[in-house]
Amino acid sequence: MRMSKTFVKTLREAPKGEEARNAQLLIRAGYVHKEMAGVYDYLPLGLRVLEKIKQIIREELNRISAEEILMSTLQKPEPWKKSERWDDQEVDIWFKTELASGGELGLAPTHEEPVTELLKTYVASYKDLPRAVYQFQTKFRNELRAKSGILRGREFLMKDLYSFHQTEADLDEFYQKVEGAYAKIFERLGIGAETFETFASGGIFTKYSHEYQTLIPVGEDTIFYDKEKKVFLNKEVYNEEVLRDLGIPEGTEFLETAGAEVGNIFKLKFKYSEPLGLNFQTKEGERQTVYMGCYGIGVSRVFGVIVERFADEKGLVLPEAVAPYKYYLVANGEKGTAKATEIYEKYREKDEMILDDRDVRFGEKMKDAELMGIPVRVVISDRGLETGEVEVTERATGETRKMTLDKVFGAL
Amino acid sequence: MRMSKTFVKTLREAPKGEEARNAQLLIRAGYVHKEMAGVYDYLPLGLRVLEKIKQIIREELNRISAEEILMSTLQKPEPWKKSERWDDQEVDIWFKTELASGGELGLAPTHEEPVTELLKTYVASYKDLPRAVYQFQTKFRNELRAKSGILRGREFLMKDLYSFHQTEADLDEFYQKVEGAYAKIFERLGIGAETFETFASGGIFTKYSHEYQTLIPVGEDTIFYDKEKKVFLNKEVYNEEVLRDLGIPEGTEFLETAGAEVGNIFKLKFKYSEPLGLNFQTKEGERQTVYMGCYGIGVSRVFGVIVERFADEKGLVLPEAVAPYKYYLVANGEKGTAKATEIYEKYREKDEMILDDRDVRFGEKMKDAELMGIPVRVVISDRGLETGEVEVTERATGETRKMTLDKVFGAL
Repeated sequence: MRMSKTFVKTLREAPKGEEARNAQLLIRAGYVHKEMAGVYDYLPLGLRVLEKIKQIIREELNRISAEEILMSTLQKPEPWKKSERWDDQEVDIWFKTELASGGELGLAPTHEEPVTELLKTYVASYKDLPRAVYQFQTKFRNELRAKSGILRGREFLMKDLYSFHQTEADLDEFYQKVEGAYAKIFERLGIGAETFETFASGGIFTKYSHEYQTLIPVGEDTIFYDKEKKVFLNKEVYNEEVLRDLGIPEGTEFLETAGAEVGNIFKLKFKYSEPLGLNFQTKEGERQTVYMGCYGIGVSRVFGVIVERFADEKGLVLPEAVAPYKYYLVANGEKGTAKATEIYEKYREKDEMILDDRDVRFGEKMKDAELMGIPVRVVISDRGLETGEVEVTERATGETRKMTLDKVFGAL
Repeated sequence: MRMSKTFVKTLREAPKGEEARNAQLLIRAGYVHKEMAGVYDYLPLGLRVLEKIKQIIREELNRISAEEILMSTLQKPEPWKKSERWDDQEVDIWFKTELASGGELGLAPTHEEPVTELLKTYVASYKDLPRAVYQFQTKFRNELRAKSGILRGREFLMKDLYSFHQTEADLDEFYQKVEGAYAKIFERLGIGAETFETFASGGIFTKYSHEYQTLIPVGEDTIFYDKEKKVFLNKEVYNEEVLRDLGIPEGTEFLETAGAEVGNIFKLKFKYSEPLGLNFQTKEGERQTVYMGCYGIGVSRVFGVIVERFADEKGLVLPEAVAPYKYYLVANGEKGTAKATEIYEKYREKDEMILDDRDVRFGEKMKDAELMGIPVRVVISDRGLETGEVEVTERATGETRKMTLDKVFGAL
């Protein structure tokens, strides 16, 4: 990307009324644009981050043989009525709308019902199980308040995975595979060290579910934890009964902190397959209800969490795995600009560089590179070129070194 | 993809009430699933086709320096009121909904208004022009009838590109670049030979716009054309005045045929920039309104058009550029299956093969390969392996040849 050609600019201020630090920074750095509270447009840099996050998730889910699909946003009421999730009294975050030809529709806030219906077309016998499908899809939730930037959107990107099994044992086995995949995903996304599988309420269907909580101050959940014992509990299940269930000695002292839920995994069992009638014929010729699991990751929320976790007073700090580009070339002076442009063109195919070739002050370029959080800033200036070296600064640590150009880009 | 592992199966029949041939075939072949009229889920094969179409469009638009973004579906009324497109009397295909916190919202049927608003943040001076941005985004249109399968969806995928200019001459120049890009896109998509730039009504703002019409019997538009003179006219502008304007000699005889509009390009000029206040400061310090153009391609519609154009009595026929996979390996017999599996694993990384390793009759595999429209079917059977050869059939022509495995897959 050439800074002189992109339509986006860094901004001095986020729009009034934007309270969330993640959105403030992302707007100022030119990654997103606010449409309204909880609804954001993704600009070229922001979209690249989303795509990189998606690709990491995709690779790990493909590894456990899940298949990618794309279901619709528009939802007819019937399947949701069967599971008692259509009524606004039951689910209070629906956006509803009307078909011109008559009839109410909803905008999917999640996809358990349609995916269960979908599988009814394809699952007939035990031979058709197990199966797992997932999608990256825009979800709509009519939140009363939306003040957390991209951490809690009214329109947001989610990865939802659903699995289908003959037996509970098989569901358990796949559930563990997902736990493994999730560990790898959060590790690759750069938030593995502060993201923990956490006991949470399973609602009225199972005693517990698991959430993936990233421990950051801005998180909306309260987490009690004992890192040594590797126990993490959402406040909602922090009580004597649960501690007894989990075999935690009385008197164990927990620390309290805030967490942002970046994912959750849930053994649905028959919750949807039973009311919606998803069943199969066993080897013995009997009809049996399909066991289901569901597994979410909030893709745009993860983006927000990464921003909140790493940003500093200078702006965004993005881990290399999700940064829109790896390098930010600051061109300075006539020869510097010529050289920087040459480098940019040379590695153009790799598509890992921003070239700041704008006609603005050197200091502004330096600051924008920091605000935008690009991992490696490379200053290519007339003076540096005299000694054949460039100045390389790592955004995360702030460390600056002088290096030859070959050394900087040799690995590309 | 292994046929024994995917959750999808080919179906003997499309659901009752599905009248469109494209949807019937896509459902039977396991590419899509019908949610309701005009609303479809994309299954693994269908999603791969969409992604391949997107990638071809993306590459050609990036080549003309357009930048990819992703705008929101949820729309607040204000910008649309300014352009007089909010009222259901003016635009009759809105899906509207209500915010829980109060206020009406719409689901974007297109994005001229929000993109104009977006650019207001970034365009201040003549130095910020020209610019072009595009997105692949799910659009919502509340069609009274939706009986054309994925040719006319209530929820569908569209590529919309918008351009911004200082002068009309600059708009004209970019418009020509888009014409060039579109020609390449339709060529690469395999429908170049039957897709033509067609004069159509420009509404009340300009005399003409250009549509890209693919001439197929199922198309909803009527096109008058003279191929030799390279003149294509939508019926809506087929009158004496237009013929005079275009300098077409009186008495020229036009042929009449059906066309499906796969794209359109439109010089908006000040249509949105003026009421929404998108302007810039000229070199001379004056404020001037930005010239705009918009350029759409119906991504899911193009998919439907490709289906309608090439399908035959055996099922889908997909051009290699958009087919979900290039090869369909039919494994037959014990050694055949072992060999086919070996080949599949060897080229797994390339991700261009379907391995039909199901425990079903040979004839069923052969038929499914045809129904699914995969360009190259390769039969790897015990008998064939005795002579070291496999049977290779091109789906489009039906031609079968015997070849060595090396020859078939050497290019991979």
